[in-house]
Amino acid sequence: MARWQPDAGERLRVAALDLFEERGFDQTSVAQIAQRAELTERTFYRHYADKREVLFQGQEQLNDALAAGVAEAPELGPLAVADEVLVRAASFFDDERRPFSRRRQQVIDANPELVERERAKMAHLTDAVAAGFRARGVPDVRAAVAAGTVVSAFQVTFELWVAPAETRDFTVLGRAVVGELRAALSADAAL
Amino acid sequence: MARWQPDAGERLRVAALDLFEERGFDQTSVAQIAQRAELTERTFYRHYADKREVLFQGQEQLNDALAAGVAEAPELGPLAVADEVLVRAASFFDDERRPFSRRRQQVIDANPELVERERAKMAHLTDAVAAGFRARGVPDVRAAVAAGTVVSAFQVTFELWVAPAETRDFTVLGRAVVGELRAALSADAAL
Repeated sequence: MARWQPDAGERLRVAALDLFEERGFDQTSVAQIAQRAELTERTFYRHYADKREVLFQGQEQLNDALAAGVAEAPELGPLAVADEVLVRAASFFDDERRPFSRRRQQVIDANPELVERERAKMAHLTDAVAAGFRARGVPDVRAAVAAGTVVSAFQVTFELWVAPAETRDFTVLGRAVVGELRAALSADAAL
Repeated sequence: MARWQPDAGERLRVAALDLFEERGFDQTSVAQIAQRAELTERTFYRHYADKREVLFQGQEQLNDALAAGVAEAPELGPLAVADEVLVRAASFFDDERRPFSRRRQQVIDANPELVERERAKMAHLTDAVAAGFRARGVPDVRAAVAAGTVVSAFQVTFELWVAPAETRDFTVLGRAVVGELRAALSADAAL
């Protein structure tokens, strides 16, 4: 970030979200975002590759953090790993971020292209988590199904966290989701 | 299917797959598919809504069958339900279908738009399975995470089944995948 434009990235993000809500994502241009933020397009592109990136920036850091959760989980059971992964995720999704995340989610849900982007992200996250299991010696197929379970727990937790009336924090929700998964599995007599 | 054009749907499907492989999905038109099958475009549209549908037709029947597996599973644990769902799926994925499914998968994997379509299908399947759990009295969050686990087992089984050198049938693979999930969960001391 250039010294003479403190918080330019943040101003652009706020301007973009406002415009996406007012006009729709497709009807908003980078020029309009820059104008609303009283910055230049050149400044925009110094912060974001395109207007979609305003919504998805930081995903790689999140993926890396969640993969680190797999690498450092004390046990390799999917529930133990889900617990660890959700604790890492909680540091990304704090209450300060929640209002932005909620508005962002509504913009995404209204736009099929963005929904697809979100699904692709989940698929990549699942691959990353499976790689994390494999790196710890878990065989391929086991790693793949375990990763599906872990990412499913993350996804359900995130959906609860951004839901309009939800006030519980991410860690509390994550613990509840893993508890529900445990309860579901307790119905599996054969386990 | 019109009586004077036996197997027109099948001929169109073969022609489409041949062309998708030869030229790529994007470079193939409905007119070319019809011509290759020695049928008219009108006949094509009597069988498929568009060229993409040639690859995705039958998905609703599959979803319905898998949802019925949730409705009729003897127990409500995710592993028991996955077992039941995979047995239903096996009737769709028999050895006669496998060569087509393999070629189809390669066409899909080569085209981002088709990959997205496939991901959307999995998301809808997850919703359908979750609805099946809820219909049997499983609370919302539990239904959502259990569905994620079940669909993950289906997805991994399907991926194995279409893999180039795989010869085991769908039922055998499904049983192996659920076994791997069970083995993974046995590492969860807290379960």
